Amino acid sequence: VAAGVPGGVPEARDDATVLWLGDAATGVISLIDQTRLPTEFVRIECRDVPAVWEAIKVLRVRGAPAIGVAAAYGAVLGARTGGLADAQAVRAALRDATTFLRTSRPTAVNLFWALDRMDRVAEAAPTLDGPALLGRLLEEAHAIAEEDRAMCRSIGRHGAELVQPGQGILTHCNAGGLATADYGTALAVIFSAHEQGKPVHVFADETRPLLQGARLTAWELQRRGVPVTLICDNMAAQVMKEGKVQLVVVGADRIASNGDTANKIGTYGVALLARAHGIPFYVAAPSSTFDLSLSDGSAIPIEQRDPREVTEGFGRTTAPVGISVYNPAFDVTPAELIAGIITERGVIRPVVAERIRAVLGADA
Amino acid sequence: VAAGVPGGVPEARDDATVLWLGDAATGVISLIDQTRLPTEFVRIECRDVPAVWEAIKVLRVRGAPAIGVAAAYGAVLGARTGGLADAQAVRAALRDATTFLRTSRPTAVNLFWALDRMDRVAEAAPTLDGPALLGRLLEEAHAIAEEDRAMCRSIGRHGAELVQPGQGILTHCNAGGLATADYGTALAVIFSAHEQGKPVHVFADETRPLLQGARLTAWELQRRGVPVTLICDNMAAQVMKEGKVQLVVVGADRIASNGDTANKIGTYGVALLARAHGIPFYVAAPSSTFDLSLSDGSAIPIEQRDPREVTEGFGRTTAPVGISVYNPAFDVTPAELIAGIITERGVIRPVVAERIRAVLGADA
Repeated sequence: VAAGVPGGVPEARDDATVLWLGDAATGVISLIDQTRLPTEFVRIECRDVPAVWEAIKVLRVRGAPAIGVAAAYGAVLGARTGGLADAQAVRAALRDATTFLRTSRPTAVNLFWALDRMDRVAEAAPTLDGPALLGRLLEEAHAIAEEDRAMCRSIGRHGAELVQPGQGILTHCNAGGLATADYGTALAVIFSAHEQGKPVHVFADETRPLLQGARLTAWELQRRGVPVTLICDNMAAQVMKEGKVQLVVVGADRIASNGDTANKIGTYGVALLARAHGIPFYVAAPSSTFDLSLSDGSAIPIEQRDPREVTEGFGRTTAPVGISVYNPAFDVTPAELIAGIITERGVIRPVVAERIRAVLGADA
Repeated sequence: VAAGVPGGVPEARDDATVLWLGDAATGVISLIDQTRLPTEFVRIECRDVPAVWEAIKVLRVRGAPAIGVAAAYGAVLGARTGGLADAQAVRAALRDATTFLRTSRPTAVNLFWALDRMDRVAEAAPTLDGPALLGRLLEEAHAIAEEDRAMCRSIGRHGAELVQPGQGILTHCNAGGLATADYGTALAVIFSAHEQGKPVHVFADETRPLLQGARLTAWELQRRGVPVTLICDNMAAQVMKEGKVQLVVVGADRIASNGDTANKIGTYGVALLARAHGIPFYVAAPSSTFDLSLSDGSAIPIEQRDPREVTEGFGRTTAPVGISVYNPAFDVTPAELIAGIITERGVIRPVVAERIRAVLGADA
C-alpha cells in the first residue's frame, strides 16, 4: 500500500484512517478497511462514488467525522466523472455524487455537513473551469480532513483537563482515530491525558452487534500503550458498581441544539448507568456534529440495520432461523444525562441550548 | 436418542433438558447439549462424574435448577463406581462424587443444595446395603427433578397473575425449560400467561458473551409460539424508552436472605434501566435458589470465566491478541431494585427479609 501522499496533507501516515492519494484528476481514496480489524490491517482504495458509498454503508469507514472526510473525497471522485472539459458537467456530476452519498447512512450529521460544504464550493465559484473547480473541490476535502485532525487535537487538550490521574474511564463503541481523520474524539481525551503522563485505565464496551469497541477501540488503545480492559456491554453496570470507573466519555453522531446526543446504540443505557452510580458522563465531538436545525433529539433519524448483524455477525449463526430482530444502530441520550460536551472550542457545561450557542459561537 | 424412560419420571420427553435413562446400576444421564443450540439439537449421554462435571463447567447444561438436577443424577453415577457389594464403598464414592461436582461452578446455589440432599440420603439410611442405597439415591435424584418440574409450573401460575394482556416483557439470559428440568422460571411466567390467552410480546436480550438469550430463550419462545424479538444487550434501554416494555422477568442463580439476587451478568444493569423507566423488575426462582446462610448479596461468590468467551465467542477472533478482558459470569442485583420474587410458594413482595422468611416458611 502507498507510503507517501502528495502535498497538502501534513501528518498523513500509512495508518491514517482516510487518505487521498494522487492529484485531483486521477487520485483515489485510500482507507483502512475497518471491518477486517483487528485480525487484519488492510488498506483498500476507492476509485468511484459507488465504492465510497459501499464503504460507508458496510462500515469499512465509520465514525461520524471519518464518514464526513470520506464523503468529501468521494465527492471529488464523483465530480470528475463528467469530464473536465465542461465545467457544467463537473457541477452536475458533483451534485449527483453528493446526492447519492447522502443516502449511505442517515444518522451522522457530519456526512451531510461535509457534502453541503462540497456543494457550496461549486456554488461559490461559478466562473471556474472544470480542472480549476476540481482542484478547488480537492482543496476543500483536504481542508475538511485537516480541520478534523486539528479539531481532534483540540478536543483532546480540552478533555484531558477533565481527567484525574488514576481514573478508570469507560467508553462505548469507537470514537478514536479510526472514527476521525486522526486521533479521535472521546479517545483523543484519553490519548491526551495519557500523553500528559496521567495514568488512566480504560474499560472498553465491546459494543454489539459489530464490536467496534472490541475490534477497534481496544486495538487503538493497545497500540498507543494505554491500559485497557475489554468488557461485554452488559458488564458496564457491574464495573461501575465495583468502583472501577470515575468517568465516561463517548463520541457522538449528531447533537441537537438542546444537547440531546445520538451515538452508537447502548450509549443511552451507559448514560443511565453512569447517572445511577454518580459517575460523570461526557460526550466528545467536533462542532460539525451539532445539528442546530433540530430543537431536540426526537427528530434525529435512527438507522435500522440488517438483522443478520445480530444473528450471524461473526461467521456463525447464533439465533434461531426466522427470529425477529430489532437492530437500531443508534440511540439518543437526553442532554440532562450529559455532564458536558467536549468540543474543539471548549467544554460545553452545563449542556443547555444557551451554552451550546455560546461555545459554538458565530456558526450557531 | 432414546424415546422412553423407565418409570418414575412422568412428563419426561425427548426434549427434556436432563433425563436419567435406565436403572440405577447401569443407567446414564441424557441431556440436551445446549452449547450446540440453536443450530443443532443434540442429546449427549454422561456415563461418569467427570463427564457431568465437564457438561456443567462448559454449559452443556446450565441454569441453576437444571444444574441441580444434573448434579443429583451425577451423584448417582459416582456412587456406583465403588461397586455395589460394599455399602461403605458406595458411601465413599458418593462423597467423592459430590465433593468433585461442587467444584464445577461456584455461583448457582442449587448445585450445592442438590448435592447436599444426595449426601443426606446416605446419612439418613446407614443400614441400607449397596444396591438399596443406590436405588434410594436415584429415587432422590428423580424427586429433585420432579419437584423442579412441579415448582416451575407453580412459578408460572403465580407469575402469570402479574402479567397484563398486551404487555411487552423483557428477559435476560435463559431462565426457561432449558435452565430447569422443564418449563422454566422466568419463562414459565411468560409461557403460563401465553397459555392463558394473554397476548404478550417478549424482548430477549441476547446475553453476551455466551448468547443464551439468542441461542436458547429465543429458540424456546419460538418453539412455543410466543412472539419474541431478539435484541443486543445494549438495546434494552432504548426498547424501554420507546415504551415497548411493561415488565421485566429474569431468573436467579442465588438469592441471599435479604433478597439480593445473583443472576447472569447484565441483570443488575437491566434492573437499573427498568428502575429508570418505571418498569417493575421481577425475579422468578424456586425456593431452592435461596441461600439463607447469606445475610446479603455481597458474600455470593462470582464466577470469573475464560476471556476467550469474550474474544473468540463467535468462531472468529474479535479482539486484539493479548487484550485484557474482564468476564464475570454473574452480578448481584440489590433487593431494593426488585419488585417481587416469584416462587413456587407465591410472590414475595416487597422483597425484604421478613417477607422472604414468611413465604418460604418452615425451610427458612
